[in-house]
Amino acid sequence: MPATDNRPLIALAIGDPAGISPELTARLLDRQEVQDAARLLVIGDRRVLQDGAAIAGVELDVELVEHAAAPTVGNRPRLLPGGQLDPATVQRGIATREGGAFALTNYRLALDLAATGLVDAVCFTPFNKAAMKLADAGYGDDIVYTAATLGVTGPASEFNVLGPLWNARVTSHIPLSEVAGHITEEAVLRGIRLTDTSLRAAGFPVPRIAVAALNPHAGDGGNFGREEIDAIEPAVRRAQADQLRVEGPFPSDTVFLRARSGAFDAVLTMYHDQGQIAMKLMGFDRGVTFLGGFGFPICTPAHGTAYEIAGQGVADAGAAVNAVLLAAKMVMDRGGEGVWGTS
Amino acid sequence: MPATDNRPLIALAIGDPAGISPELTARLLDRQEVQDAARLLVIGDRRVLQDGAAIAGVELDVELVEHAAAPTVGNRPRLLPGGQLDPATVQRGIATREGGAFALTNYRLALDLAATGLVDAVCFTPFNKAAMKLADAGYGDDIVYTAATLGVTGPASEFNVLGPLWNARVTSHIPLSEVAGHITEEAVLRGIRLTDTSLRAAGFPVPRIAVAALNPHAGDGGNFGREEIDAIEPAVRRAQADQLRVEGPFPSDTVFLRARSGAFDAVLTMYHDQGQIAMKLMGFDRGVTFLGGFGFPICTPAHGTAYEIAGQGVADAGAAVNAVLLAAKMVMDRGGEGVWGTS
Repeated sequence: MPATDNRPLIALAIGDPAGISPELTARLLDRQEVQDAARLLVIGDRRVLQDGAAIAGVELDVELVEHAAAPTVGNRPRLLPGGQLDPATVQRGIATREGGAFALTNYRLALDLAATGLVDAVCFTPFNKAAMKLADAGYGDDIVYTAATLGVTGPASEFNVLGPLWNARVTSHIPLSEVAGHITEEAVLRGIRLTDTSLRAAGFPVPRIAVAALNPHAGDGGNFGREEIDAIEPAVRRAQADQLRVEGPFPSDTVFLRARSGAFDAVLTMYHDQGQIAMKLMGFDRGVTFLGGFGFPICTPAHGTAYEIAGQGVADAGAAVNAVLLAAKMVMDRGGEGVWGTS
Repeated sequence: MPATDNRPLIALAIGDPAGISPELTARLLDRQEVQDAARLLVIGDRRVLQDGAAIAGVELDVELVEHAAAPTVGNRPRLLPGGQLDPATVQRGIATREGGAFALTNYRLALDLAATGLVDAVCFTPFNKAAMKLADAGYGDDIVYTAATLGVTGPASEFNVLGPLWNARVTSHIPLSEVAGHITEEAVLRGIRLTDTSLRAAGFPVPRIAVAALNPHAGDGGNFGREEIDAIEPAVRRAQADQLRVEGPFPSDTVFLRARSGAFDAVLTMYHDQGQIAMKLMGFDRGVTFLGGFGFPICTPAHGTAYEIAGQGVADAGAAVNAVLLAAKMVMDRGGEGVWGTS
């Protein structure tokens, strides 16, 4: 470590306790590249973390801290108490209200620390959505919950990051029948701008953004829908007029072929499965989900809680490592400018 | 060749003359595995075929025949006059009314020969849709045109075939905003049955069919749409009651991962890009498009006219070869049963 420790301080919220999140958290703390890139402050219950360490087969000498601003000494893992949970009461592979409440408490505390500037970024190990809903009936998805918790009303979006390729979307967890109604010029333009801002913050000087079409064959000149003509093209032109490096709309069944070959840094898709089908086929389970629009980086591995292998000690921490490294890089690249603004 | 030549007789319509179709047609006639599997009867203009042969660098001693029932001797390429076109008038890379009319005339004649039992199957080299529309303003897509030409009113669908994996869809060339309205229990059931029938005809004794969901996360239990609950699940259950080996609905962003790993023979998707995004990422440009529901096999390479490389002699005939081989296999597997029925 350098004499002056300028590694970013990242709050790491332990996710759902019935899946692989406890063991992933322990593995993260044990990884040299993570220690080199960031100081982690785990939020959760020390007993759950120690249980995860036992599963993962790593030895952790966890230091309990009582406030986030406590000075860091070396790489001894640090934990701030969040949700309270006795791991002996956890039944692996079962989504429960108690598990959801534990993860929600940890995440909310991590967000509060970041919002008040006590940590630089937030990471979390996977949540289980059913458990989250049992704990909080109003829980919609991570973006909606995060925006409500932070009081953010500006544009916000989930980004999927696979190596050098980013994917954002204009609509997300809504019925397919409602997608077209949300594809307005303003909504697409907001999506383009948030994508551009987020990628600049991640170190792309001039992000190359491809915008996907909504309809088959990009609407075939209006024969199969007019959203390309009425909303997407005008939004792309306005963004180009603002000097953003954006192209499209492109047929969604070929745009990812071009992106995969390196032609673009990001693809902005119009709906959930349009991007998810492509990203998952390209190996997105090794990738990172970034929540953009919240004033600080929020990153999590793209995969889920993997209930089917929980507790076996076989979970691969690669995506979780990538999540921490991305958050750390974005903090370091941020410098003094407020690129995380929620406007 | 065996003493009795029982190879299927396949009409091969030359597609759009401004792209790679003429050279692909010539290459097909020159390939040993094609000659082993089928007797080809080219439909088109001998001058266009010879021009394609010159581009492809293959020597063809084409025999002109005046009716499809003329006996085949050996592997000498045979051509039945269809559309008339002087290749000297063709400007490569440009979609024209004349080019579209040439391809349409060839295709219509091939369909007529198959409908009257004079040939066993139809193949065609790529069409250009814009040229087709210039020649026939009512041309919608290949399925709609073929159904209208043959007077078929029963279920018909485009299938995408990539190695052992098939993909069919319930809706195709319509605006995304109209998709949900077409996802009825009856429409999904028709799609499942046509998929099952087509794969049985292609040699799968009991096809394993996965049905994709319409909404993100398969509707998340009704939170993001109800088509899974109201239409897709009931259709799957009815098909299962008929002893079809069908499962679903599965979230569309993971069903192709399972299919790629060999868990299913076919995926029935709800809309165009849902399947096309996945199939193209998996390399579908090397695959085959099969038009199902018409009483005889109709196959074409999955890729398009490739205007950008037309006339250079570099076009890869692999997908076109696969198209002929699939059509030939389906004829041979058919036996005496009328599995091609349009009911």
